[in-house]
Amino acid sequence: MAGAFGVALAACRGDDVVAAARLLGEARPTAVNLAWGTGRALAAYQAALGRAADPEHQDQDPQRLAAGAALDEARAIAADDAAASAAMARHGLGLIPEGARILTHCNTGSLVSAGAGTAFAVIMAAHQAGRLTRLYVDETRPLLQGARLTAYEARRAGIDYAVLPDSAAAGLLASGAVDVVLTGADRIAADGSVANKVGTYSLAVLAQYHSVPFVVVAPVSTIDFGTATGAQIVVEHRAAEEVTTLGGQVLAPAGSAAYNPAFDVTPASLVSALVTERGITQPVTTGNLRLLNTRPPERKSAPVDVSVEL
Amino acid sequence: MAGAFGVALAACRGDDVVAAARLLGEARPTAVNLAWGTGRALAAYQAALGRAADPEHQDQDPQRLAAGAALDEARAIAADDAAASAAMARHGLGLIPEGARILTHCNTGSLVSAGAGTAFAVIMAAHQAGRLTRLYVDETRPLLQGARLTAYEARRAGIDYAVLPDSAAAGLLASGAVDVVLTGADRIAADGSVANKVGTYSLAVLAQYHSVPFVVVAPVSTIDFGTATGAQIVVEHRAAEEVTTLGGQVLAPAGSAAYNPAFDVTPASLVSALVTERGITQPVTTGNLRLLNTRPPERKSAPVDVSVEL
Repeated sequence: MAGAFGVALAACRGDDVVAAARLLGEARPTAVNLAWGTGRALAAYQAALGRAADPEHQDQDPQRLAAGAALDEARAIAADDAAASAAMARHGLGLIPEGARILTHCNTGSLVSAGAGTAFAVIMAAHQAGRLTRLYVDETRPLLQGARLTAYEARRAGIDYAVLPDSAAAGLLASGAVDVVLTGADRIAADGSVANKVGTYSLAVLAQYHSVPFVVVAPVSTIDFGTATGAQIVVEHRAAEEVTTLGGQVLAPAGSAAYNPAFDVTPASLVSALVTERGITQPVTTGNLRLLNTRPPERKSAPVDVSVEL
Repeated sequence: MAGAFGVALAACRGDDVVAAARLLGEARPTAVNLAWGTGRALAAYQAALGRAADPEHQDQDPQRLAAGAALDEARAIAADDAAASAAMARHGLGLIPEGARILTHCNTGSLVSAGAGTAFAVIMAAHQAGRLTRLYVDETRPLLQGARLTAYEARRAGIDYAVLPDSAAAGLLASGAVDVVLTGADRIAADGSVANKVGTYSLAVLAQYHSVPFVVVAPVSTIDFGTATGAQIVVEHRAAEEVTTLGGQVLAPAGSAAYNPAFDVTPASLVSALVTERGITQPVTTGNLRLLNTRPPERKSAPVDVSVEL
């Protein structure tokens, strides 16, 4: 959605749209949806430019026509995203027991979606159904998306929540205080490996060790059949300063190196279930993912495979 | 050591020494050494007060005599601590392979010891022996003892180190970049359960999952035979603000609750080896701990069992 609106913005401004699409699509290596949305908007833009050459459009500004098409495509993606959120919430709710205590990581709510999000959409559905007793929010170092964003969304929704240091999740799980762990995903390889915010893999191992279900919630557009295995997913490594400083405050000696991968990769064997807008896959295997991908979408404009030449 | 010097300070100042000892000894519930050192200094103080009643001491100020005895005891504990550090380093070095990449948590070096510390003493010995390729330092949220203290000690010692978010340790272990995990301990129950800084248990589970040795380094005074099992260890829970703010900076919405245990408890089955000043115990079992406790100390003034009436 961000990629598509970015392309539409570049087109409306009269920027070099292909260059903008390339910049946006390659801005971060790990998430697959970014390039997918960017590609869709660019394809719409280029198709409209082609149509503008037709005699019937000769009285219209081709750039304006194409920018409008890119914006329409971005809006369609947003509408699909909202519909997908609602479908994921509906499917995922079935996995949430009465009185559930849910642990989540990073931010997956309406701040990153046109709807209620992915994992957070299921949390919201559980809250609205009266099934949610407590939400535990990993603060999600280093950028604190849990403490800053998910806690904000939980508070706004009136959910009873507590923020915790990421490393406290193990003891929390051991104490029996968590019924299910819910996270999103940035890219799912064809073998079901899930790339998501750093710390997700840690939670997956700990959830399995404590026999707590580890559920990933993500739209089908997150599945990348072009990436065969988790080992092939490129994990973005970021600046040391994200770890060694915080809002200008120095946290470690000057010049300290840091190991700061933005994501980690969880093998499919640790994922209890994958919730998508087309239903739930359990266990997560290549075959089941392909089956899911060929299942008819619930809305006509749901994500389709688009090949775009950049 | 801090408890004993605290009692000595109270005695020198002319404060109520018994009240001060009680306050210090009960200041934090989880670590056992604090009450142990406090008790030793108080016992020395009270014994000296008793001796001051003898005719041979009638020309001396009883308070001054007793304060001197408390200070001497604190100094003896410090000397023992330095000797214990050296012995732990010597024993622990045997577990460190050539070219080792070590992951550690929290702070266990000279800032919390009269010597080189516990886990960090072994790291220093490995560094001095040329066996340490790289030290990975968990930042150790929420109070960042790793980023603030261990990184400082590593830098000062010229060790090649990198700070990491605690939740990134799982991916690091999965990548095969860690040969051994080393931590300290605040209390070891009679069943070998290890209470230590929150996140230690997380590392222990992850280390076992990735078949990496998880080694605890702690003096014998850390073993508390009065606490039968890990479940009986009282874990200190601290203020939400430690998680939701940092140095005055707000990290989460105002009023956010937090789950903020200062420690967690690792079962003995996850501890590959316990390194003490009296040798290495492997596996960590009640029987082996009792054997270790009865092994003759390497120095005459090493920790002894002292029963003190507060």
